[in-house]
Amino acid sequence: MRIIRDIKKMQRIAGGWRRNGQRIGFVPTMGALHEGHLSLVRRARRDNEKVVVSIFVNPAQFAAGEDFKRYPRDLSGDAASCRKEGVDVVFYPQARQMYPPDYKTYVEVRDLSNVLCGKFRPGHFRGVATVVTKLFNIVQPDSAYFGQKDAQQAVIIRHMSRDLNMPLSIEVIPTMRDKDGLAMSSRNSYLSPQERSNAIALNQALRLAEGLVRFGRRDARGIIAELEDFIRRIPGTKIQYLRIVDPDTLAPLAKIKTRALVVLAVYLGKTRLIDNTIVKAKRLCRGD
Amino acid sequence: MRIIRDIKKMQRIAGGWRRNGQRIGFVPTMGALHEGHLSLVRRARRDNEKVVVSIFVNPAQFAAGEDFKRYPRDLSGDAASCRKEGVDVVFYPQARQMYPPDYKTYVEVRDLSNVLCGKFRPGHFRGVATVVTKLFNIVQPDSAYFGQKDAQQAVIIRHMSRDLNMPLSIEVIPTMRDKDGLAMSSRNSYLSPQERSNAIALNQALRLAEGLVRFGRRDARGIIAELEDFIRRIPGTKIQYLRIVDPDTLAPLAKIKTRALVVLAVYLGKTRLIDNTIVKAKRLCRGD
Repeated sequence: MRIIRDIKKMQRIAGGWRRNGQRIGFVPTMGALHEGHLSLVRRARRDNEKVVVSIFVNPAQFAAGEDFKRYPRDLSGDAASCRKEGVDVVFYPQARQMYPPDYKTYVEVRDLSNVLCGKFRPGHFRGVATVVTKLFNIVQPDSAYFGQKDAQQAVIIRHMSRDLNMPLSIEVIPTMRDKDGLAMSSRNSYLSPQERSNAIALNQALRLAEGLVRFGRRDARGIIAELEDFIRRIPGTKIQYLRIVDPDTLAPLAKIKTRALVVLAVYLGKTRLIDNTIVKAKRLCRGD
Repeated sequence: MRIIRDIKKMQRIAGGWRRNGQRIGFVPTMGALHEGHLSLVRRARRDNEKVVVSIFVNPAQFAAGEDFKRYPRDLSGDAASCRKEGVDVVFYPQARQMYPPDYKTYVEVRDLSNVLCGKFRPGHFRGVATVVTKLFNIVQPDSAYFGQKDAQQAVIIRHMSRDLNMPLSIEVIPTMRDKDGLAMSSRNSYLSPQERSNAIALNQALRLAEGLVRFGRRDARGIIAELEDFIRRIPGTKIQYLRIVDPDTLAPLAKIKTRALVVLAVYLGKTRLIDNTIVKAKRLCRGD
């Protein structure tokens, strides 16, 4: 396994693979790899001749006052994990090469970027869309792998990739969870033991949503009220948003007719966690 | 020569060429091809195994009230020209496939896009940057060819390509001119015989700028005043802008020290024409 820091060098390697007709699978990450990331890597390994994992804590996707500086970094641990999974190249660029002083170009996916997380993290998804475009041009993958945990990110990247005719496929892989159901996230490391224990509120609320829909509830407003009520009862939680939206357009739904995305962001102390699930309404009877 | 209308089909053809290790040269155009375009095509033909010319009057780069509807269109004439120059594929996409109803993604090159032409054509360069990004992803060229006539466009595309790490080279080819010096442009067809005759004002003003610099003038403000004075004396002209700027950053220059870009946009009746030249100050004496 090679660790490549230089953009042009990575581009040459990827170009060589493509000319050889070798399929490239790509997993873009910010490092601090956990089993969620590794599930993407395994899928990439299974389906491609070459696998590239990028590790880059992208300054452009952190809003002012967010956790850019203290975001966990562990290159040697990450490299060991990648080696174990049979990764071919870890791409580890430097911020000053990715964003030279006269950097000026940004990719924006309208409408989808200023709702949900985007409403509370101004510029976040512009930063994500921009860095992903750059990384795709550098790594030139046939397939790129993203986690469903970041549901809005997945929707935006899919849309961007389609709109800009990027010559690759976007694969979205189910969320990996700890045994008690907490979605894996590099930010879980910020939690105190007490916060970690309370954090299962997010997953439990989503399971409650699934249960309510299974038993016939269809009104988004009523379901949201029940979930909020449930989360508020767990100490140390503060809801940032909780919505039921269309899984493709992220538009709010009044009534669940077929598939719906339940998305939430909740603070545990100072740590902001997100999670989501897709609920499916089966027809209970004609006309329902 | 093939005419391809479908995006995915064009992408498959280009992908096949790349896997065969064949260099792809690409000339993006809005059609109504003239000798300026053909000089790009000949350069692409000389330097690549495969040549693609796209013909697409891009609605996203016309501001409200501009000439999108009446922009000249001549597919059969353009196809004949391309065939004669040995083009492999004319890519001729439809607007509704390029911009489906839920299209949302735009590429923006900040600072460079809202000066000069961009100041008077809001959204124009966002439209250009976006469509060029799309076309690059579809045609996957090794080299793409643009005319120096559209100097600001060339600067923006070069910057975008560098910022987004696009795996290709941008080649900018000198402006082609009619015998009397008028820069070739598809929009010259809008001119009445009288306007056409007066339109040489643009080229003459640029030659005057070169002369003034050659004879030692360095102050941008003074040079601009002389050029404006010259153009105003030619009937039927109306200056939109006339600037002396840095050729890479497009920032206004007070004094010409080394290279400078003289750019202008002038109306002849209702037709807006642009032109430019790069002037070089040679040191006249030490300390100059």
